[in-house]
Amino acid sequence: MAETTKFLLSEDAIPTHWVNLLPDLPGDPLPPLNPQTMAPAGPPDLTPIFPMELIGQEVSGEPDIEIPEQVRDVYRLWRPTPLFRARRLERALGTPAHIYYKYEGVSPAGSHKPNTAVPQAFANAQAGVKKLTTETGAGQWGSSLAFACSLFGLGCEVFMVGSSYDQKPYRRSMMQTWGATVHRSPSELTQSGKASAGHQTGSLGIAISEAVEVAAQDPESNYALGSVLNHVLLHQTIIGQETIAQMELAGEEPDVVIGCVGGGSNFAGLTFPWLRRKMRSGHGPNFLAVEPAACPTLTKGVYAYDFGDTAGLTPLMPMYTLGHGFVPPPVHAGGLRYHGDAPMVCALLKAGLIGACAYRQNETFAAALQFARSEGIIPAPEPAHAIRAVIDEALSAKEAGEERVILFGLCGHGHFDLAAYDAYLAGTLEDPEFSQEDLDAALAALPEGTPSVA
Amino acid sequence: MAETTKFLLSEDAIPTHWVNLLPDLPGDPLPPLNPQTMAPAGPPDLTPIFPMELIGQEVSGEPDIEIPEQVRDVYRLWRPTPLFRARRLERALGTPAHIYYKYEGVSPAGSHKPNTAVPQAFANAQAGVKKLTTETGAGQWGSSLAFACSLFGLGCEVFMVGSSYDQKPYRRSMMQTWGATVHRSPSELTQSGKASAGHQTGSLGIAISEAVEVAAQDPESNYALGSVLNHVLLHQTIIGQETIAQMELAGEEPDVVIGCVGGGSNFAGLTFPWLRRKMRSGHGPNFLAVEPAACPTLTKGVYAYDFGDTAGLTPLMPMYTLGHGFVPPPVHAGGLRYHGDAPMVCALLKAGLIGACAYRQNETFAAALQFARSEGIIPAPEPAHAIRAVIDEALSAKEAGEERVILFGLCGHGHFDLAAYDAYLAGTLEDPEFSQEDLDAALAALPEGTPSVA
Repeated sequence: MAETTKFLLSEDAIPTHWVNLLPDLPGDPLPPLNPQTMAPAGPPDLTPIFPMELIGQEVSGEPDIEIPEQVRDVYRLWRPTPLFRARRLERALGTPAHIYYKYEGVSPAGSHKPNTAVPQAFANAQAGVKKLTTETGAGQWGSSLAFACSLFGLGCEVFMVGSSYDQKPYRRSMMQTWGATVHRSPSELTQSGKASAGHQTGSLGIAISEAVEVAAQDPESNYALGSVLNHVLLHQTIIGQETIAQMELAGEEPDVVIGCVGGGSNFAGLTFPWLRRKMRSGHGPNFLAVEPAACPTLTKGVYAYDFGDTAGLTPLMPMYTLGHGFVPPPVHAGGLRYHGDAPMVCALLKAGLIGACAYRQNETFAAALQFARSEGIIPAPEPAHAIRAVIDEALSAKEAGEERVILFGLCGHGHFDLAAYDAYLAGTLEDPEFSQEDLDAALAALPEGTPSVA
Repeated sequence: MAETTKFLLSEDAIPTHWVNLLPDLPGDPLPPLNPQTMAPAGPPDLTPIFPMELIGQEVSGEPDIEIPEQVRDVYRLWRPTPLFRARRLERALGTPAHIYYKYEGVSPAGSHKPNTAVPQAFANAQAGVKKLTTETGAGQWGSSLAFACSLFGLGCEVFMVGSSYDQKPYRRSMMQTWGATVHRSPSELTQSGKASAGHQTGSLGIAISEAVEVAAQDPESNYALGSVLNHVLLHQTIIGQETIAQMELAGEEPDVVIGCVGGGSNFAGLTFPWLRRKMRSGHGPNFLAVEPAACPTLTKGVYAYDFGDTAGLTPLMPMYTLGHGFVPPPVHAGGLRYHGDAPMVCALLKAGLIGACAYRQNETFAAALQFARSEGIIPAPEPAHAIRAVIDEALSAKEAGEERVILFGLCGHGHFDLAAYDAYLAGTLEDPEFSQEDLDAALAALPEGTPSVA
């Protein structure tokens, strides 16, 4: 019997619209707030750093938003991406479960991030912007934006989280190869960086502050964010839409859809099209968000208004948060080291429409290795968290004797994370814990005077 | 107008047979020789290190050899690979030429090498072999064999050329992640390694000697070679066959087909199906093999019988060679650092059926950077040599005002070569020359008493 089971779509199956879940969310959405006035943040709060096209997408009530033809044209470089059934992993586990994965590592930058980097670069180029600034954790977002900027003739300046800058020099070289300038964050170039000089491993929150500060001060520059915001999640929904078509080809419906969560864009991109279908039809799969135990935003954070960055330059957003001052330990899943999560993902968790769980670093690498040796693809540490949850789900299905159908997002390859695999194989990989003490200290720094969201 | 122009084939277009060019070669093929007797080397010379299935392919006179269904099944993990038209590069060059590239970097190991690693691992597993040994230069072959061995439950032991081992630690980690054992070559584990301790940068020739030595001494182990031999070139011909179908979709015929050459498997895989069509029909494209100026086998070597490895453990093969004792400077295109070339490729050059040229390291990286910034894919240093030739051909077409159609093989991505890009961007990349003195010294060590091949 054929073991390789791949479901491919033709190019004309690349979605023509993004799925905007905002109008389908239960209750009224909580707006972001201007931290000075505590009034809802509007376009004037955002125009210094974002073009109107993206601001419009951020607040749109339209359920479907058309994808510009020039963006679909670039998507065709690597899309539609393949969906595989993991038969070799199923056999290795001896499970009756059927495991499917959507593989986004085939993009030039090696992850799902170009799905939003391309429309963001395009919208800014159309608006006459000359340069984009951004932060990057593991480097996947920064390299994706560098790639997209090179295609549309934009400059690109990246603040890279210190611990990743040190662990992943090749991700930096990749950004430079595509023409970007890369700074280690915290840097000496910004007020926010200087104020965070005590945290030399850096964090996404600090790097965001630096990039926003530079963009806000330069009229020809804008800022681009790789996750968290509504329009970023929107752009990623092409993943879930393709997956729905591919599961139809496979002739199965998932019982559970699993994705890793850092800022939430991978998880949202995979699940939102499925979620809308379920909310409208009343039936569909369960959803599970997986995060690192060292940065357990959804599983241990509080639901509150908080800043998106460390320095407090962004609007206040309603989300599960560990406090914007929290600096997570330098785990290798740099893309998951964020103190908060996308407001839309948090609202879904609050409403009980999705679940969440957390795993330690060593158990995720054990799962990644088992996946690499059975399926042949080496996963990035971020989706390795989803793989850990998938394997546990498949083993529980085995125990229960159930033919459960599991779908997960393999959002990137691990070609730039092999130093971490090296450490894991050598038995020297750190396995940081998260304590109540850490949480208490982090939450003590929540901004005061914000409205309750409970 | 759409700029992204991609030609995809469905899974059932994966070839069912490999193209064996041997029966179509002009004249009688020169056999490999047993170095002790100078008689043609036969199966008994090869059975200590290869399974009969592959020995049969090595000497077969059948023009088409069926691909086992289990091998095609694994090919489906990443095949058929895409063919792109490089419209963004054409525009950057302002050329009327049409440039097409076949992209083999979508495989799990990131190059064309799994095309032969998979059938080799399969044939050995079928024959009851427990472990494969091999050499690797840039690491692309070693990681491909590690990947293939993990799928068929075989052990894998890799001797990695010293300079690449030092330059590319992540390639080593990748092999280990797939379960392989990796040694820096020259090692202390073999007689061949100890005898080469003076050449600490190593070479493919030395690493081959080490791997052959280990396999020959262990009855449960066989050896696997990533290039040069007839059966290896054979396995790669799926590339060219897919490309013929894709150029038909594009509605164009290439005027010239260009590929880089180290041992010759990438070049052969791309060109042999086109070559057979041309030899049989009497018309077709020109063919250009591109090599590094620091290891100019085809452009400056002599045509003679020589050993395939440094220690003289292999049969003597008729090929263009710089002498089996030649240790090329440590250029980053580690996959092209080989003193000889595939006998079949050499016979084609000797017969005037293909052409060859050579480029220096810095000019190839300049081409690679231009390609990355226009097409969005970062090439490995090996195919960067082909890109250099393609750009020069496209510029000459521009000067001549001709709409030439150029097809080339982009045989791998550069995710593990970013240290070299880093050096190029910093202006510190070495640019080694090759002198008549080097050549004279190398050729002085050619084996004596071999028959003339002129």
